[in-house]
Amino acid sequence: MVNNTITVPKGFLAAGIGCGIKKSGKLDLGMIVCPAGAKAASVFTTNKITSAAVQISKEHIKSPKIFAVVVNSGNANACTGRLGIKNAITMCAKTASLLGRLSAVEGRRVKDDGRNVLVASTGIIGEQLPIKKIIAGISNAAEQLSFSAKAGLDFAKAIMTTDTKPKQAVRKIKVSGAEVTIAGAVKGAGMIAPNMATTLLFITTDVAISKPLLSRALKSAIDNSINRLTVDGHQSTNDTAIILASGLAGNRPIVTQCPRYKKFSNVLMELCEDLVKQMALDAEGATRMFKVVVKGAASKADAAKAARAIADYNLLKCAVHGGEPNWGRIICAVGSAGVKLNPHKLSCKLDDLVVFKNGEPTLFDRKEASRIVSQTTHTITVDLGAGKQTDFYYGCDLSAEYVKINAEYHT
Amino acid sequence: MVNNTITVPKGFLAAGIGCGIKKSGKLDLGMIVCPAGAKAASVFTTNKITSAAVQISKEHIKSPKIFAVVVNSGNANACTGRLGIKNAITMCAKTASLLGRLSAVEGRRVKDDGRNVLVASTGIIGEQLPIKKIIAGISNAAEQLSFSAKAGLDFAKAIMTTDTKPKQAVRKIKVSGAEVTIAGAVKGAGMIAPNMATTLLFITTDVAISKPLLSRALKSAIDNSINRLTVDGHQSTNDTAIILASGLAGNRPIVTQCPRYKKFSNVLMELCEDLVKQMALDAEGATRMFKVVVKGAASKADAAKAARAIADYNLLKCAVHGGEPNWGRIICAVGSAGVKLNPHKLSCKLDDLVVFKNGEPTLFDRKEASRIVSQTTHTITVDLGAGKQTDFYYGCDLSAEYVKINAEYHT
Repeated sequence: MVNNTITVPKGFLAAGIGCGIKKSGKLDLGMIVCPAGAKAASVFTTNKITSAAVQISKEHIKSPKIFAVVVNSGNANACTGRLGIKNAITMCAKTASLLGRLSAVEGRRVKDDGRNVLVASTGIIGEQLPIKKIIAGISNAAEQLSFSAKAGLDFAKAIMTTDTKPKQAVRKIKVSGAEVTIAGAVKGAGMIAPNMATTLLFITTDVAISKPLLSRALKSAIDNSINRLTVDGHQSTNDTAIILASGLAGNRPIVTQCPRYKKFSNVLMELCEDLVKQMALDAEGATRMFKVVVKGAASKADAAKAARAIADYNLLKCAVHGGEPNWGRIICAVGSAGVKLNPHKLSCKLDDLVVFKNGEPTLFDRKEASRIVSQTTHTITVDLGAGKQTDFYYGCDLSAEYVKINAEYHT
Repeated sequence: MVNNTITVPKGFLAAGIGCGIKKSGKLDLGMIVCPAGAKAASVFTTNKITSAAVQISKEHIKSPKIFAVVVNSGNANACTGRLGIKNAITMCAKTASLLGRLSAVEGRRVKDDGRNVLVASTGIIGEQLPIKKIIAGISNAAEQLSFSAKAGLDFAKAIMTTDTKPKQAVRKIKVSGAEVTIAGAVKGAGMIAPNMATTLLFITTDVAISKPLLSRALKSAIDNSINRLTVDGHQSTNDTAIILASGLAGNRPIVTQCPRYKKFSNVLMELCEDLVKQMALDAEGATRMFKVVVKGAASKADAAKAARAIADYNLLKCAVHGGEPNWGRIICAVGSAGVKLNPHKLSCKLDDLVVFKNGEPTLFDRKEASRIVSQTTHTITVDLGAGKQTDFYYGCDLSAEYVKINAEYHT
């Protein structure tokens, strides 16, 4: 079994077990441990209503070193009030107390109150966690911690909700002569199943890097990947991305925005792009994805706004599902996006096929257009004719299966 | 046959015929004629890309009197460049030339260039109109013009695209002792079928009123009805609302914002609300509608923004389709709406059932919640706890049928 999991970078153990949160009996509790302590950075949802886990992790991420991340699926611990907060703290503290007893960790600097532990949750909103099951599960997971490929895969499975498969990626680069590895596991694009929430992304790396640069690299990578994918058009209450850097690769530490930083940062972005494509194609009911590139915008913000308006547009998403080259819907979405545009210069192409040019429809080959839109992935390019800025978004199709998943789940 | 059509108000003839734009052979060309000439007001789409018909009607509405409205369905005449503009002008001019020859019209003040005629189109975007068929159709429609209930109903049918039934309403009121009648016909909520565009609303009334007040009353009614319904979250390239006032009711003309104006304005709004509910329940694949009321907002704009974010939220729309009381999705939509809110005062109810209060979930009766959400219509009330402003939106469910309609149509 080739290891392509989060346990590939040096210094990380993982586990994934079932503790009974999910009625199906599937894996629902995951753990990542960095016995040496990792520098950590994070990006959280911008939703004004955040899960208890997000609220607690936002505090704990301030600790200089993080020793573990504990994650449950099947329950989002969101909109759960004061009890929810208490339960999230309990998850961290329980994990910390176990790590203190694990020889591998030696417990040296792990605080008993769990401030060195991050927590994430995903699943049903508005229901309290089955905290007793979770406490027992944390003990069980701690016993299963391992550097193995299986342990990494189990973690990737344990964070899934309606995802149909675990989504993972690994990248290796040389940094000042040392081999640096970055690995990631991600779940769910957009909101998942009724009352379900969350994109959760966990990245491990053994690079030696300062905390501010680790944070900068993560934010940049997220902004150009995960934050460019829109499935439902909303950020959930639970969205969380965490990167842990063990510093064990042996590279000369990255402490300035030098070429080594750029190299690391670019590969991190590449890893995130790989994961985001896996997410788009595994979005609820999705069968196809597409990239929207907007050019000729008066501002970068306008380009992003227009690209997102297109990627979010239900009617276009339905058309892509049907493999129909309905470019009129693209133009309609652009027109109502609230961005500056020149109607007489507005142009649109599907991959390299020009369907609308300078405000006039073209006599394009419809069969070719259908072929393009029927691919697993295609690119929509729109030129607003209003400036020189460009930006992009990823989208996926909207299927009857999406509606089914989201309408038929019983609360 | 009781007449509940746009021919009820005094002074209006109508017709609806099939001229072969729709392959199905269904009615696709409608005409309203006011031989005496009507004062007219309009509201057009705010989409920056507008159909040729919208561009031409925006010019023609400046004429002091409008003698006719000509409408085609099956082709939106949008994104059709210069030829599209020419064809829209031709539709108006052809209508005007025929009216000049009709004895009922006497042709006195009808200009041959069609500047006294309004035009509207709905259907496929990006294809040129079959203008020869339409010219023949206009002649045919002119011959069929009548005050009858059948003529009014035929008009309501001729403007339909994927609508499953004609949508009409009539209201009568006394204004300074005279009976005033208002009648409306509307098609389609949101975008319809692939590449289809448009909400089209046509209102006839015999009230005597000044043009500025007619315009003011229409804008107010639209803003509180049609503009509060979101099906796809986008305004189309073709959205058009037109009101024609023949002035033949015999009331003392309304020339100030007096109680008579208020009375007329309120009844016009009531008529539009009636039509908007018909639209919501006849939206593509829709089986249920809901009203979202947002209270406790810091500003009116925040209240509207939050209400719209909820009504537009795909996951909630799916849940309503499934009859599932997934209040967590409501809270999630509110949190990402970008409005001021107090998480500790945030509350939510479904009709009168409180499901979330002051940031904590309540122990509500789930069966009762399911019953509420399974109704044809229910009200979601959210209190942001951040101020005293309130606003509302209407939404409808999202069904697999919606996806089917919008994915399987072949271009």
